[in-house]
Amino acid sequence: MQERAFQDYYPDGWSHCYGCGRLNPDGHQIKSYWDGEDTICTFTPRPEHIAIPGYVYGGLIASLIDCHSTGTASAAAYKAAGRPMDSLPPLRFLTAALKVDYLRPTPLGVPLLVRGRIKEIKGRKVIVETTLSAEGEVCARGEVIAVQVPEHMQGES
Amino acid sequence: MQERAFQDYYPDGWSHCYGCGRLNPDGHQIKSYWDGEDTICTFTPRPEHIAIPGYVYGGLIASLIDCHSTGTASAAAYKAAGRPMDSLPPLRFLTAALKVDYLRPTPLGVPLLVRGRIKEIKGRKVIVETTLSAEGEVCARGEVIAVQVPEHMQGES
Repeated sequence: MQERAFQDYYPDGWSHCYGCGRLNPDGHQIKSYWDGEDTICTFTPRPEHIAIPGYVYGGLIASLIDCHSTGTASAAAYKAAGRPMDSLPPLRFLTAALKVDYLRPTPLGVPLLVRGRIKEIKGRKVIVETTLSAEGEVCARGEVIAVQVPEHMQGES
Repeated sequence: MQERAFQDYYPDGWSHCYGCGRLNPDGHQIKSYWDGEDTICTFTPRPEHIAIPGYVYGGLIASLIDCHSTGTASAAAYKAAGRPMDSLPPLRFLTAALKVDYLRPTPLGVPLLVRGRIKEIKGRKVIVETTLSAEGEVCARGEVIAVQVPEHMQGES
């Protein structure tokens, strides 16, 4: 049986995001999982997610890196606290800063693999490094500084 | 009469981008213009471009900054060369690096203004700084390093 994705643990009120919300029928609904100490997410862009013919547009790449990283930050925070992801209060993160280096054009029409690695957990801040690969080649690198949502907002659903 | 947007000068082969291509019926089709020495683009996100209720998701913000910046780089390169934007060969740019600082949540349902400023033009590289504002408040800051597409690809249409 497939394990539950990080995003499947988000409370309903945090599940509308265009990038990762399971309740957004128009969005990407990305799913992130542990892979040892790393985290992974695979996503196949749609034909309209084009930059120039044959290649994925950079905004989608940024979106995938962003949402996979905030999901990774959340999972890392639960892990660090020794808490299961369905325990309350929810630990959710927003992006304070996003950086993407586009190393080579990303081919369209194949699954993309985003791999995350927790670089640092410090207080309410988690820094996540990512690579985005297609057909085994790294096409982009990302770094996200994710900040935990204040407690008075965590309980919203 | 409204002036032509930067993106309306892109050759057909470069006009499919989900963020800025005038030939992508599913995409954002952003339009960028000069505003003195700055460049501007306004875009009103759709309801599904949500992060949490009431706010815009970060991936869209990154996309707007990205495409407005490559458009700005193109316009700046034509200007620096003293050439009109419909002259050949086309000067098109791809993103080498994108950085976004999310300063505050960006409200959903109002027009967003992306303002670009050319920080540096050096050889084939243009660095563009941007702010993204809603209702007069800066919600995000961006920096894009855009690199001119090699000449053998510029002629594609």
